[in-house]
Amino acid sequence: MAEPRSVDQLLLILGEIVDLERIAGLLGWDQQTMMPAGGASSRARQRATVALIAHERFVSDEVGRLLDECEAATCDEDYSSFARSLVRVARRHYDKERLVPKELAAEMSAAASSAHEAWVLAREQSDFERFLPSLETGLELRRRYVACFDEETHPYDHLLDDYEPGVTTADVQAIFAELREGLVPLVRDIREHGAEIDASMVHRTYPVGDQVALVEQLLESIGFENDSWRLDTVVHPFALRVGMGDIRITTRYFEDYLPAGIFGAMHEFGHGLYEAGVSPEFDRTPLERLSSLGLHESQSRLWENLVGRSRAFWEFAFPTLQKTFPTQFSDIDAEQFYRAINRVEPSLIRVEADEVTYNLHIIMRFELELALVDGSLAPEDLPAAWNERVDDYLGIDVPDDAHGVLQDPHWCFGFGYFPTYALGNLVAAQLWRRVGGDIPELADQIGVGEFEPLRAWLVENVHARGSTLTLSEALDTVVGEPLAARPYLDYLADKFGAIYGLTPSATA
Amino acid sequence: MAEPRSVDQLLLILGEIVDLERIAGLLGWDQQTMMPAGGASSRARQRATVALIAHERFVSDEVGRLLDECEAATCDEDYSSFARSLVRVARRHYDKERLVPKELAAEMSAAASSAHEAWVLAREQSDFERFLPSLETGLELRRRYVACFDEETHPYDHLLDDYEPGVTTADVQAIFAELREGLVPLVRDIREHGAEIDASMVHRTYPVGDQVALVEQLLESIGFENDSWRLDTVVHPFALRVGMGDIRITTRYFEDYLPAGIFGAMHEFGHGLYEAGVSPEFDRTPLERLSSLGLHESQSRLWENLVGRSRAFWEFAFPTLQKTFPTQFSDIDAEQFYRAINRVEPSLIRVEADEVTYNLHIIMRFELELALVDGSLAPEDLPAAWNERVDDYLGIDVPDDAHGVLQDPHWCFGFGYFPTYALGNLVAAQLWRRVGGDIPELADQIGVGEFEPLRAWLVENVHARGSTLTLSEALDTVVGEPLAARPYLDYLADKFGAIYGLTPSATA
Repeated sequence: MAEPRSVDQLLLILGEIVDLERIAGLLGWDQQTMMPAGGASSRARQRATVALIAHERFVSDEVGRLLDECEAATCDEDYSSFARSLVRVARRHYDKERLVPKELAAEMSAAASSAHEAWVLAREQSDFERFLPSLETGLELRRRYVACFDEETHPYDHLLDDYEPGVTTADVQAIFAELREGLVPLVRDIREHGAEIDASMVHRTYPVGDQVALVEQLLESIGFENDSWRLDTVVHPFALRVGMGDIRITTRYFEDYLPAGIFGAMHEFGHGLYEAGVSPEFDRTPLERLSSLGLHESQSRLWENLVGRSRAFWEFAFPTLQKTFPTQFSDIDAEQFYRAINRVEPSLIRVEADEVTYNLHIIMRFELELALVDGSLAPEDLPAAWNERVDDYLGIDVPDDAHGVLQDPHWCFGFGYFPTYALGNLVAAQLWRRVGGDIPELADQIGVGEFEPLRAWLVENVHARGSTLTLSEALDTVVGEPLAARPYLDYLADKFGAIYGLTPSATA
Repeated sequence: MAEPRSVDQLLLILGEIVDLERIAGLLGWDQQTMMPAGGASSRARQRATVALIAHERFVSDEVGRLLDECEAATCDEDYSSFARSLVRVARRHYDKERLVPKELAAEMSAAASSAHEAWVLAREQSDFERFLPSLETGLELRRRYVACFDEETHPYDHLLDDYEPGVTTADVQAIFAELREGLVPLVRDIREHGAEIDASMVHRTYPVGDQVALVEQLLESIGFENDSWRLDTVVHPFALRVGMGDIRITTRYFEDYLPAGIFGAMHEFGHGLYEAGVSPEFDRTPLERLSSLGLHESQSRLWENLVGRSRAFWEFAFPTLQKTFPTQFSDIDAEQFYRAINRVEPSLIRVEADEVTYNLHIIMRFELELALVDGSLAPEDLPAAWNERVDDYLGIDVPDDAHGVLQDPHWCFGFGYFPTYALGNLVAAQLWRRVGGDIPELADQIGVGEFEPLRAWLVENVHARGSTLTLSEALDTVVGEPLAARPYLDYLADKFGAIYGLTPSATA
């Protein structure tokens, strides 16, 4: 279909901006995987230059004028048409970026860098006081940021909107309340009534080279393609789309902890598959930029947990595992391994948490950052509030701030990101229920290493749509219901009830 | 020293442009080393976007105005002052880029890509006819390019100027005439009167992994530093500066031909050292962009040949070589290896040529491209002219175009690059003579692996100056004489006279 001329002009400018953003991504990837340490200061300037040029080109009056023209030209089109979706998504970004003064954006970016430096030191020394000034500055900058927008809206809504467009603070509060009410008794039941699970075999010695070979083999069996993907090793794993046909994922390995490499890779594979599956029609447009982090995280969690930590997957994959590590697995069978990688144990560190307790880590972070943003919690009182909640939700003591409030770097960069992790889990369960309806033989397929039907379903229903739909629009379209905690709680109750031999009544 | 305000403003814009050019370099590096094949079309667009933005920002009226102001403000400064050099170098680029219409630049760039595709196929099938249309288009585009500039000047001068500012066609003709007259009899003497040299040991089996380890060790001993350099393996080796403290070099390995990996790496190390040695003051300015390819090539040839293929170097390095390949070198000593890597043999392929015959390959390419550009040779007659010259200069028959006129890709991208290879050899010998005067114990130092004095001399006299001086200005400043063939011819006569046991009269 021939698009109006103003749409073509808009696409020309936005295409360049997407190019610059993908280049910025590559600069970051290279920095974390390839760049010699000496290149850091040059790289920082290169990244700043690319960000500045992309910003200037985007918030120009010309883009504003083209958006006005395009809105007029496409208003009669279907809501989900290419042109109308493009204009809608671009408009959302434009209005937001236009309202934030360039100086404030630069100040936030600079403050984030120095906050991260302070955080690294503070965590090393387990000394919250070292991080406190950066936290205060960050909060103050967010207050100024929020003040750029509509004052009627809850300040946290504006922050959340950067990561999860359309979802409000009230939405998250309601759903997290339901989630917490389901999780706390489940954790308690497992602790009080659950069977003992021996997970010691995951801590045997696994040479990294062999782990890499294993992970490559597992990834190729689920859909990693050598001519359009890369896998690299980093300190903090991530995934990115550098361009169409160029998906890069990363993981990390510990010689004495096998799950990190495998599940880190499957997690990032899920993110990568989402990026790879965006409709080619959306390439080099804002519609290829996947702006719902909840949806994004649903894809990583789906492959990491719903596939990767399932019994069916290890029916398929255990022989490969055993072949790679014959001595380490000489006395272990698939069922023992399946139970080991699903052991539930309240723990201090979020990134090491199991599927059941993970979301409690997220809920408490959300509650604390909300209190910081609305002013009901003073930054200096954060460690005490943190420790209290860990005791409350997980029943454990925090020995020091390094294992508590200082464990995550996210608050160097802002607030509003954490909830998307838990939303991802919930959405994954909602999608999984729907996939199971559409592909009743899914578990059998996974059990024999047949992943194409699942991938095809995800591409058609989720990936190909790019960012044309918000999270709630996507849920409405794909599963026909709003964001909900129940499917996830049911999934946990079924899976862990069986693993731990809980009676149905205890987990109801 | 406080620079005038207009210089600061100019630096701000030029800094961004250098950032974009370095990013373009990284995009190319990544494409050749890391990128999955599927990313090619996205990458082409990203590179085009970066090139376009850099071009637009540079040829803006604002830069023109700032250059005018800066010229007025710095005209009383010393010729080699930072600000005056900056303005002089930026002006040279600006005037040239400004005169070339954006459309022509884009057409040349697109034609180069499709010419390269045609060349790959043509070479595979050894079929010059497949490449002929691309060659004709390329020539026609260069005629339009040349027509953008002063019509009084020889058309080839404008092409040469892109790679070697300030050197004219007449300069190259004169010096190549002298070079040819010295080389042809030397090649004949070696063939007719030289001793037999056994080079069979370089064709034994050398596992690539061991070669990589050897090359890394050799590079580290001559100055490669892990915290600011990278070494990777590619099909066509190159070197680049991604930023200050981020120098990337590449080489390639053949299991049955040892010299390629070692000397490829030492060659690119020379390029990399030049890029690394530019004064930090010039970082993110046009003065860090090394615009004399002859000077650049002098640095790579110096490390590849004057150091790497010297007897002194293998006195130092042979034990490492022998330790890496004990069986392959069980019956070989340093002297035999030294002679083997310096065997002179007229051959068809430029990149495999020895130090003596190499320049004859260059001279004939220069003569042919000059004839193409001035119209005295029709493109369809090129293969015949090529084969005739190979017979004339090297005394060998060309079996097919793949081993003749189609061996190099350079003519896909333009004309005027080839001469800089030979100029590099000449300049290397001129510099080497001067280094030898300043550091009389140089050979002894190399013989014990002491490279710091040589590196320091090169940094001080060549590298640190960045592109403040043209090739002839640099020669005038550093060696106190103009570009000359004699030092190189003397070097060859001495070295190969000794290796081949020629009488002085035969090589005089």
